[in-house]
Formats: sequence, C-alpha cells, structure tokens
Amino acid sequence: MSRAQTDNTYGTVILVGAGPGDPDLLTLKAARLLGQADAVVYDRLISADVLSLINSNAEKVYAGKGRNRHSMPQDEINETLLSLAKTHELVVRLKGGDPFTFGRGGEEAEFLIARGVSVEVVPGITSAAGAGASLGLPLTHRGLATGVRYVTGTCRKGEELVLDWASLADPDTTLIVYMGLANFGTIAENLIKAGLDPKTPAAAIENATTKSERLCVATLATLKAEVTRHEFHPPTLIIVGRVVDVVDQLKFATGKYVAEFEELLDDAALP
Amino acid sequence: MSRAQTDNTYGTVILVGAGPGDPDLLTLKAARLLGQADAVVYDRLISADVLSLINSNAEKVYAGKGRNRHSMPQDEINETLLSLAKTHELVVRLKGGDPFTFGRGGEEAEFLIARGVSVEVVPGITSAAGAGASLGLPLTHRGLATGVRYVTGTCRKGEELVLDWASLADPDTTLIVYMGLANFGTIAENLIKAGLDPKTPAAAIENATTKSERLCVATLATLKAEVTRHEFHPPTLIIVGRVVDVVDQLKFATGKYVAEFEELLDDAALP
Repeated sequence: MSRAQTDNTYGTVILVGAGPGDPDLLTLKAARLLGQADAVVYDRLISADVLSLINSNAEKVYAGKGRNRHSMPQDEINETLLSLAKTHELVVRLKGGDPFTFGRGGEEAEFLIARGVSVEVVPGITSAAGAGASLGLPLTHRGLATGVRYVTGTCRKGEELVLDWASLADPDTTLIVYMGLANFGTIAENLIKAGLDPKTPAAAIENATTKSERLCVATLATLKAEVTRHEFHPPTLIIVGRVVDVVDQLKFATGKYVAEFEELLDDAALP
Repeated sequence: MSRAQTDNTYGTVILVGAGPGDPDLLTLKAARLLGQADAVVYDRLISADVLSLINSNAEKVYAGKGRNRHSMPQDEINETLLSLAKTHELVVRLKGGDPFTFGRGGEEAEFLIARGVSVEVVPGITSAAGAGASLGLPLTHRGLATGVRYVTGTCRKGEELVLDWASLADPDTTLIVYMGLANFGTIAENLIKAGLDPKTPAAAIENATTKSERLCVATLATLKAEVTRHEFHPPTLIIVGRVVDVVDQLKFATGKYVAEFEELLDDAALP
C-alpha cells in the first residue's frame, strides 16, 4: 500500500534473506513477505526464480550492477530504503543468503533505525549450507572437522586482503570463503605459507542450489588453476577442508550433479 | 505410503533442517516435506510448533531423550532410519538448525548411502542466523567482525574439550558456540588465557526465535555467572565478539525482547 507523501511516519523495512538461489529454500516467512511487499530492493545475485515470487504490484528497485556496471553504493541503497519507507507501508530489502552474514544488513539496519524507521530481519539459508546440502558435503563431520569458519575473500579496490592466515590455517576447521574466486590464488598461497597442507581438499561451487550449479573438486594448491580452466564465475563459493572428501562418499545423494562432478574430478590434477 | 516388507528396494530418506525453532523459518521445501512424509524421526530440540506441521498419517519416531533420560545412540538412529526406509516411501529425518552444521547429518547420510538408500538433504536456518535476525545482532559487521566461526562446546563424557584456543582468540571474528552452556566457564577461561580481552562483549540466547526466547548480554568474563544466575537452559547459543554491542543500537528492531534485554543489561556486572 502506498503512503501519503505528507505522512510523517515511516513504513517498515524488512531485511529478508533470499537464501542461496533455489526459491524452494526461501523461508515460509520470506516467501509470504515477497507476496505482500509494496516495494522490493534487490541485489544482483538474487535468482530470477526468487524474483518471480514478488507480487506484481510491488515497486521493484535493482541495487546491483547497472548499465555502467557499477553496483549502487551502500549510501545510495540506504537512502533508497529510507525514501521508499516514506511512501510505502512494507519495504522488503532482499539480500542473497542471510542478511547478517556478509550481507551488510547491520549497516542498513543501523542507518534506518537511527532515523526512526522500524526494521525487522528475516534470516536466510546461507550459501554454504545450501551448497553443502545440495552436494552432499557436510560442513562439520566427525573426525574431519570440529567447526566451520566463514570469511570473505574480497577487499576494497586497491587494498590488500587482510586475514589472520595463521589462525585460518587450521586443518580441523572447514573454511568457507565467500566471494573469494578472484583472490583465491593469494588466499591459497597464504594458507600454505601459514602451514596448511597444499593437498587439503578444496571445492568451488558456482551458482549453488540452482539449475546451473557446478562443482569443481581439487586441492588447496590446484583449485585456482582448475576454476580458471573451467571458467567459474561469481557467485562461486569455496570450501577448504577434509570434509570435501566426503562428497565422494555421498555423491549418490546428489544424482543430478554426479556427471559434472565426476568429469571435474577426473580433470583435477591431484598432486 | 507404506511399502511391502518384501520389497527389496528402499524408500528415500531426506535429512531436513528444522531451523532454529520458529516454524515460519522453515524453508518452503521443509514445510512441504513435513506434509508429505510417511515417517518422521525427530530430535528432542524440535519445537512443538514445527512438529505440528507433520501430517497426521505419518509415523513419528522420537530420537531424543527417553524415559531414562538417555538420547537414542547414533547407531540406533541410523538403524531406525534404515528400518523405516524398508517400509516407508518417504522418511524425513528432522534435525534442529541445519543438518550439516553440527547435526551429524553426514554420518547418517554415509550410513544410509553405503546400504543403498537414496538420501537427500534440505538445509535449515542455523540457530546463529536465527538468533542474530531475531535480536538485531549481525554476525559480521563493518569494523567489528570480518568473519564468523562456529564451534561446538560439548565433548564426550569424561573427555576434555579440545579446541585450538590460540586460533579462536581472534578479536576480529565473531565466535558462535553451539551447545556451550555447560562448558562456557572453561571456554571463557581458555579464550582469556589465549589473549582475548575479558571485556569482549558476549551474549547468550536461550530458545532463539521462539516465544520463550531470552537474551543475556554480558562480557566474556562475566557471561557464565550471568547465565547461571538467570538459570539459562539448553538450547542456548553463545555469541562472543564486538558485534554483540550492535544489539544495543538495533534493539528497536526487536521490540518484543527489549524489556528482557534491558533488564538483563542492567543486571550484567560489567567490569
């Protein structure tokens, strides 16, 4: 429902996790909100299948890469949300994965709440959980990983990637790298220098949980070359750790991906 | 649908994430499967609201604490799933949170796949994402946490908790401790010894995302005493890191918990 421009109060902004891609992995609450929203601001990595669940009367605003290939800066997204909240009752901010796990949801919520806007957050399935379930790759597993760690592989333009390599080079923890495709060469090099075995299994998953999902299994040392050769593109998630080996035992669970998986596994130049 | 006992093939077993507690946070796929299942094997921490979505014709098997207060051993759960797959088309193994994040889902899948049973996995919202969204506590936040790490705070009876404390004592990473209520005294002590500031903000969330959710905010040094004083019980999730401070700025987002939160915050003996 539209609000009168003269109304001093704001509508509600709900940060909604869109999950990893498969619309069937939206939460019940997220799906319902897409049907009720008066306006939806969405990122570039939201799948078309998820977008198709937005009701046709909602104003849709794209916050991803535009015609000049630049993403909308965060300040502009914040202002867009505030402005929509002036004129719409229910504004949904739709974010890939989970809004509070590398989603910058906290920044958007802070900005809006400081200006008196009501904010709610609906969690989403993060890509790693989606990819793991889709491929038969447990993130923790008895004897292989006692924990799991999520980092982001991006840094601001011109800056160096600052991560605590010694702490990350832990053979007992599954390491999940979001947005790490471009920098994975540097990441692998640093992890190896910090003592992680170059033969540690590593996997890349492109478009996890969607029809175009692809899996590349290699090792920490060889994954970068393999994903380059197979032309992986974002969104690609990287998983490093002994749990990657379990994919092989559980591959029957994921019938639809076995062919690609086996082809890629054969290709992988295991050292 | 029941299968004839003489049929040699198996039905399908689907490991389904039940999410953090709020039934509205089930995925569309999980909710649909609960309506279709012929048998459901569920853990003790699944909320009654989620269980109410199971169709009334399904055979329900409880794998949690029984009359003698012992959980069903993992071997027995595995055998139960195999046995149900002989006689039922669609067996749902319903697990709290996400089946592949501390859910032992990998072990169950391995056991079943090795015996020729078709297995699928449906991811779930893990408690940390659910709690963060419910309370306005981002797991990552610019300037406060570059990553997030999940560990479990339990160990087998009589054994010592083995964690890499030096690696865990990282002020730039949000540390999530699952099932860590009983051992949090030891955990905090070890983190402080390993160099983490005793004043690091720390929060405990009991029954995250449900009507009985409770939040306790304190510091790494004081949280154990506070949760003891306020009689927190499992399931309680613990979050350690600077992002806990953001709860204060975002608390308007979570109106229904503010009263409890402020009371507990006033109570917390901040050093």
